[in-house]
Order: sequence, then C-alpha cells, then structure tokens
Amino acid sequence: MSLLLRRIAPASQARWGAATIAGRRLLSKVGGNGTPDPMTGELTALPDINVSRLEITRNTKPNTPPPSSTLMFDGPLNLEPSSTVLHYAQTLFEGMKAYRQENGKVTLFRPDMNMKRMNNSARRIALPTFDGEALLDLIKELVRIDKHWIPKEPGHSLYIRPTLIGNQKAIGVGPPNEALLFVICSPVGPYYPKGFKPVALYGTTEYIRAAPGGTGAYKLGVNYAPGVMPQKDAAEKGYVQNLWLHGPEHYLTEVGTMNMFVVFKKENGALELVTPPLDGMILPGVTRDSVLSLARDHITGKNRLPNLPDNLVVSERGVTMKEVQEASKSGDLVELFGAGTAAVISPVDRIGYLGEDVHIPTGPDGMGPISRPIWTELVGRQTGTIDSDWSVTVDN
Amino acid sequence: MSLLLRRIAPASQARWGAATIAGRRLLSKVGGNGTPDPMTGELTALPDINVSRLEITRNTKPNTPPPSSTLMFDGPLNLEPSSTVLHYAQTLFEGMKAYRQENGKVTLFRPDMNMKRMNNSARRIALPTFDGEALLDLIKELVRIDKHWIPKEPGHSLYIRPTLIGNQKAIGVGPPNEALLFVICSPVGPYYPKGFKPVALYGTTEYIRAAPGGTGAYKLGVNYAPGVMPQKDAAEKGYVQNLWLHGPEHYLTEVGTMNMFVVFKKENGALELVTPPLDGMILPGVTRDSVLSLARDHITGKNRLPNLPDNLVVSERGVTMKEVQEASKSGDLVELFGAGTAAVISPVDRIGYLGEDVHIPTGPDGMGPISRPIWTELVGRQTGTIDSDWSVTVDN
Repeated sequence: MSLLLRRIAPASQARWGAATIAGRRLLSKVGGNGTPDPMTGELTALPDINVSRLEITRNTKPNTPPPSSTLMFDGPLNLEPSSTVLHYAQTLFEGMKAYRQENGKVTLFRPDMNMKRMNNSARRIALPTFDGEALLDLIKELVRIDKHWIPKEPGHSLYIRPTLIGNQKAIGVGPPNEALLFVICSPVGPYYPKGFKPVALYGTTEYIRAAPGGTGAYKLGVNYAPGVMPQKDAAEKGYVQNLWLHGPEHYLTEVGTMNMFVVFKKENGALELVTPPLDGMILPGVTRDSVLSLARDHITGKNRLPNLPDNLVVSERGVTMKEVQEASKSGDLVELFGAGTAAVISPVDRIGYLGEDVHIPTGPDGMGPISRPIWTELVGRQTGTIDSDWSVTVDN
Repeated sequence: MSLLLRRIAPASQARWGAATIAGRRLLSKVGGNGTPDPMTGELTALPDINVSRLEITRNTKPNTPPPSSTLMFDGPLNLEPSSTVLHYAQTLFEGMKAYRQENGKVTLFRPDMNMKRMNNSARRIALPTFDGEALLDLIKELVRIDKHWIPKEPGHSLYIRPTLIGNQKAIGVGPPNEALLFVICSPVGPYYPKGFKPVALYGTTEYIRAAPGGTGAYKLGVNYAPGVMPQKDAAEKGYVQNLWLHGPEHYLTEVGTMNMFVVFKKENGALELVTPPLDGMILPGVTRDSVLSLARDHITGKNRLPNLPDNLVVSERGVTMKEVQEASKSGDLVELFGAGTAAVISPVDRIGYLGEDVHIPTGPDGMGPISRPIWTELVGRQTGTIDSDWSVTVDN
C-alpha cells in the first residue's frame, strides 16, 4: 500500500503552499506491492504505515492562499488504466474537518471515529486495513503544515478527505494487489452562510440508497454514484435532496448524503428524538453519534444542555412515512433534520411524498427546539470553543 | 469528454506494438471540458465523438507479442485526485471480445448491444452519453491495428474493455464536469482450457448483489466492489462463486458476475429453460440474450439447432431456491448454468444452501443437454465459423 498526502492548489499554479508531504515516495518504498495470500487473496504481507519514516519535502516557492473561488487540487495521480477503482469501484473515503480558533489553536473533531470507520469500509470491499492512529498522525502533520489555509471565520474549516483506492496492473474482479491511500484537503465555508435555510426533500420511491445485505452501513464510493441521477430527478421536481426510503412501509433511512432525525410530540407531552437504527443500511455517522450522545447525556444529567427540553426521549427505531404524515396532520411532528459532517444540522420543512407535500414545522431561525440547542453545543465542541474530549488538538 | 484508446504492454516495456491511437489528444481538442447545464448539471454542451478527426500515431519501434504471462497494460492515466470516479464510484464499463479466424478474418460479436448498454449505464449515473456507432468505429480501428495480438487458437480472443469515468477538479457528489472514455485490450485464453469443469456455487443469504430501485440492471462499477468480499467468503467455504439470491423467497438472480439459467423437466416431459426476467435487478447480458434467442429460434423453427431437444419451453420468470431444491430431489432438475462474455457458458454441479448441498446433474463433458448444443452454436457464431448477422467483420 502506498500513501500519498496531497495538497490543494490554485487553478493557475501547478503547486503551491509551504510543503508537500512526501509520504507517498517513502511509503512506496516501505510498502510497495502487497503480496496476496494465495488462499484468500488478502493482502497479508502488506506493510502498514510507518510514521517514523515520513519525509517532508517543502515547496521552495510557497504561495499564499488565493481567493477560495479559484481553489482546485494540484497535480494528477498516475493510475494504471486497469486499476480496480476505475472498473469495479473499489474506493472508500472519509470526510473530516480541521478548525482554527482565533487564538490559533487547530483541532480535529472525533478523528478516531473516522479512522475506525475507514478500516471497516476497507474490510467490506477487500481493501487492506491499516493502523488508523498512524494515518491520523500523518493527517495531523499535514494539517500543521497547512494550518494557515484553515479559515478563521466562524463556520469555516479545512475539509480533509482521506481516500483509499484499489490500483493494480491487471483487469480482474478481486482484492487488488496494490492500493493507494491519499489525503486531499480544501478550505470550506459554512454550509449556511446566511443562517439556516430549511430544505425540501423528495420522498424517493423509485430508487434506493441501500438494502439489507448491501453496503449502506459503510462509507464506500459505491453508495454515491447511484444517487446522482435520483438527486437530479428530485431537483427537477423542485426538491433539494432525496429522502431515501426502504421497503413497502417506506421507512425513512437517510437524507441525501446525511443521517436523519425526526422529533415527535408524545401523548404524555414528552418529545421523542428518533433516528433509524444501525441495521446495516444506515451509515454510522460521526454527527449522528454526536447528536445521540449529547441528547442522552442531557437526559441522564451527565451534561445538561442549555435550552434543551427536559422531557426528552431518545430512540433508535424505524419510522415510516405514514407515521410522519400522521404526526404532521395531528400537530405532533416537531421537527425533522439531516445530520452530517458537511452541513452539521440541516433542517427540513417539507417532504414531497406520493404526489403530496408533508409539512414540517421550523422555528423562525429555521431550526427546531431540539436541533437548535444540540447544534449550539455540537458546533462549540467541534470548533473547540466548548471544551470536550471530542476535540483533538493538532497545533496550539 | 475525452476519449483514449489504450494498448497493452509487456511488463518490461513502457510501450510496444505497432501503433498508438491518439484518440485522446484529438478528442480532447474536440471535446475538452463539458459545460454542465445550470439547471440539471447535465453535460449538454459536451461534443460527441467525431471519428473523422481520429489521428493515429504509429509506434516507430514496434514489438512482437511477448508471452501472455508477462502482459500488462501500458503507461498510467493522469487523473485529478478529486475525480468523481475515485470518491463516488462514477464508473461503468463493457466487456467485449474480438476473434480471429484461421483465415485471418477478425470479428466482433454483437457489439451494438455493448454500445447501447454502455449508454444506458452512463445515463443511470449521470455520465455523458455518446454516439455508440462512433465509438464502435474507433474500437474497430484499434482492433485492426492490433489484430496480430489476437490469438488464433480455439477459445482465444482479444478482450476489449471500454470504460467511462467521471474526472473533475473539485470534490462534490454530482454530475462531473469532465469525463474520460478509454478502451484497453488484452489477449485472453479460454475460460476452460481443459474442457468444461462444473463449479460449485454458494447460495448467498448474507449479502446481496442488487435490489429493486438499485443498479443491478446496469453495467456499473458499483455492482462489483461489494461482491469481492462475499466471493472470498464463498471461496473459504469451498465454493467457486456466489449465487446471488433475492428476497425472503430466495429468488435466484445471478451467478458471480454472470447471468444464470436453469432447466426443469416438466410433468408433460417437456424441458423448461428458465432465466430470471429483466426486472431491474438483472444485467441484460449479451450472452443471456443470445441463449434466449437461439432457444426461441429453435422452438419456432426459424433456426433449428442440432441435438437440441424439440420439446423445449423458454421462460423468463422468477425461480426460488425451494423450486430448485425440490426439483433436485425429485429428479426434475436437468441443469443449471451461468452465461456471460468471459466464460460463455459455465455449468454448475452443486449449490451450498443453508448448510446443505443441492446437487445438479451434469453430463460426462460437464455440460447438460440444453447448454451443450446452445454453446456449440453460440461459440460458432462468436468466432465466425457459423455465419450469422451477430458476427461483425472488423478485418478480412
């Protein structure tokens, strides 16, 4: 397995910035081609990442960050045309963010979860697993070198994309005899620069995102390409994203490329925060887990959140469109939102479903009574303005 | 959209052979970057393939074909690390074969079906469609130049792999603003060099290949990576390939990366040749269609096949594991086989299913009474020894 840490470049330049981490050259030497196990094809002989052998090659003519609108990635990758990623979609990735505080401190948010999930994804499509802590060390080094590229403005961050692809010199469906792990980064602004704007979803009955026995629970490339055309269809019908449904009961599963939550008012006056269970079709999202943890810690009193109602119940259970429709009509639907690394929380005000629109309440700021206080705590912990062990310091 | 026609090279050489078709350079100029439609993101402004502008650059130092065991593809592709194929699996391909007869005549088999299916696949994942006849003209030109690489021996051919990938300079799930179409080739020997060897299948209940609303009916990369790990699991259990099942009834769908057929003896003594219907989960295979057509033309008398029974019925209908199990026990199971471009016909003698083995009859040569005469006719038409309009002459 080779490792390549890549950096961003403006469109007008071949390379830029302070340094290039030459992880690839080094680790090619260390790793080279893997030797597949003759019985299983597994890359058992593949050396893992060795952080101590990292070599950093600094750019002798560093640039200063150009306007974000001109940003693009630098030089191309050289891939064999027979690479399994190009034919059989043997690819997986993670999405992470580095935040820079006004005092210069740089942090990552729960990066251990990304490393763990990335290894789970690799196992699912027979790509080699690796030492997640070692990769994290290398990502930290990359972020430290490029920390001046992280915008300081609220809601801004450096988006980090570790990617693992199969890459070999012969056509054939199977575990590849080479793999390439690369990391690319890009400064990103807030998802909602002018405040929350609730979105309309298209309750999609023609296409699926995942099915039992499939790959929905893994962050694999194969979960994304099939969603592009349904998303275009939804856009043509006037909706922003697909609400992915499952089965004849139309269970709600995910929203576009996010996990989803819905809040119901119960007969006893309690509010129930519900998200679909991790049944093999749902991506175990870092934001999903964080929302659940914050809500549960509030209920148990471990960590009370300001403005979050006390009479809260948290459920991981299936929810059907019928339940959402009936709650919308009876006034028992409190809110519905997507949750993911890119948007953090994405409120929904409408679902087009079988020719009708199901309306969902939103507050004057676009948020709901549960998502608003959770979002405040979550973003505070992500950016490091609220201390927590979820925030990992990269640079002080 | 750019187009690249690539050639194979021995491991020890950077390039070889008589010529390099410089379709890429030319068509980059013609096509360049597509301009996505602002509303739909569709690449409406993308120029199509213009065959008349093909430039051929001949290699001044051509090599003779080396031993097949040393073959590999030549120089790498340069791809942006942000290419949608690398992150979101935006890739599709076709598998075709060119055959060379002893008299030197070179033919393709039903290539129009590959071109049509390739465009259907492109539509499903929001990649640009193209003029299939134009691509076919370019493939023919590539095959003509490299015809001396097509082995003459029976069962040998030149495998042709047209591939279309998304390739852009920014991370983002959506229709890419660039696409690359490339074609690579490789000489291949027979799937069964020492006669037919029936295989054992693992009736897979833990994983799926496809589901309603998914992508099983399209030849997309996303259908392959998720099958690698289940195939390894099957191999560890002592089976060669997965038999992909669907639903609680365990409907048989496909075999590994092939379509499948099963033959039952009916109460009235007739033989029923059954394959699952094209219900959205089944790949519309060229070999599948050819097997069905040959059997139907035999029944109607349009083209009688030697040794194929007269009392034959052809059905496209669902078949459950229960039906196969019961027929195996009662003696009414005649044969079961996979059908695809690589193996043509692949007989099955055993299915591991829920802890038991279901046994399937095979003849002394490994084939069954229906597959044997159909295989003979099919291979004759493929290689051009039997005249038919399915065989397209590339070079005389």
